[in-house]
Amino acid sequence: MLSKNQIKLISSLKQKKYRLQHNLFVVEGVKTINELIVSKFNLHQLFTIESFKIDANLETIITEAELKKISFLSTPNKALALFKIPESKQIQFNQLIVALDNVRDPGNLGTIIRLCDWFGIKDLVCNIETVDCYNPKVIQATMGSISRVNITYLDLKGFIKDANTRSFGTFMDGENVYKMKLPSEGILILGNEANGISKDIEKLVSKKIAIPRFGNVQATESLNVATATAILLSEFRRS
Amino acid sequence: MLSKNQIKLISSLKQKKYRLQHNLFVVEGVKTINELIVSKFNLHQLFTIESFKIDANLETIITEAELKKISFLSTPNKALALFKIPESKQIQFNQLIVALDNVRDPGNLGTIIRLCDWFGIKDLVCNIETVDCYNPKVIQATMGSISRVNITYLDLKGFIKDANTRSFGTFMDGENVYKMKLPSEGILILGNEANGISKDIEKLVSKKIAIPRFGNVQATESLNVATATAILLSEFRRS
Repeated sequence: MLSKNQIKLISSLKQKKYRLQHNLFVVEGVKTINELIVSKFNLHQLFTIESFKIDANLETIITEAELKKISFLSTPNKALALFKIPESKQIQFNQLIVALDNVRDPGNLGTIIRLCDWFGIKDLVCNIETVDCYNPKVIQATMGSISRVNITYLDLKGFIKDANTRSFGTFMDGENVYKMKLPSEGILILGNEANGISKDIEKLVSKKIAIPRFGNVQATESLNVATATAILLSEFRRS
Repeated sequence: MLSKNQIKLISSLKQKKYRLQHNLFVVEGVKTINELIVSKFNLHQLFTIESFKIDANLETIITEAELKKISFLSTPNKALALFKIPESKQIQFNQLIVALDNVRDPGNLGTIIRLCDWFGIKDLVCNIETVDCYNPKVIQATMGSISRVNITYLDLKGFIKDANTRSFGTFMDGENVYKMKLPSEGILILGNEANGISKDIEKLVSKKIAIPRFGNVQATESLNVATATAILLSEFRRS
């Protein structure tokens, strides 16, 4: 049975300010919830149609109608959980770090988190304007990968300045990434969907790189930021 | 001024059966419409707030309120056009062809079409169950690339059987793609979001390939089909 206050709390967690205030975020779907339960994340409360056989204090059995009321999805998936937002861990500089400069689309961020997980990237750093990784749409797109990537929101300019490592950014006039010897450590910076890497950050990039375009001159102007991330992480890892 | 019949026609084009019946599809946004006007596609009718200075018979100036009524977008973008669905051109076998087996998500298909354009892939073939490329969500995601890629819906099984060329498909137990010498011609097959390549098609694949996973064993199970396409096209083209 759901209380009015619980419904109000869950609904409020669509908004970043309430996620920060309550230090909670929403996860939906049995598979992802199970992945997060066994991860570093702490379960705060589970609302489910069928018992997960976990600590009864953490679990509330609800009806399908109740789930429909609290779900953010058009087709709710049996359970909705509230997890505590973890504190970011210390960033490890002896490996490749992915940095995002104003990535705004939740689906893109979710895809990038999944790619970091696939390619064994431990640290993803984001400037403050990048979409919040605890946004329900991001969480949905990550498919549980969020529990395996350390995500830190920070002053990206200061971070790159202070990091004693090389930084790589994608630009139209960058060097052909297929012809470069790429290091196993450094910072790979990806920019905003419409505007790319911002001027302030561009000044700090040690090496401008580019994914060559094949085909004719009229071809598509740019790759989507998530597909560019896929190709670049593949290039960094393959060598 | 919009007629009731025009509104009804446009609204019907959300559905594949009416797109086929009228042989028309919807494109929104000034930039994409302009790209398509100069392409191989034929404009049937343009509904716009501001004149495009084209043949007056093809253009209807409408109000913002009218655009809002016919647009499929939550934030309409100044113009909506109806283009004629082109006939597919003959497939060219002396180069790399991308084949889709049951790709269902319009965003994924749109991203894959953009990737084909970027990597100079001339032919994209899709089995009949793959989402229709003239679906408005696909068109929105392609950003005009649809005019530069020849897309053919066909019996994929028969196509691969009859094609006198090698086919490549991604499987968990495939050969490490980073260690292979990839040809400049052949068929690269990508499968369904949840189930991968179907059993029937698997039997016809000449070479099973895989994108290696880095990082720990708990890592994400699979890459999204659009990001896998990005990495594989990059691998085929870089060599």
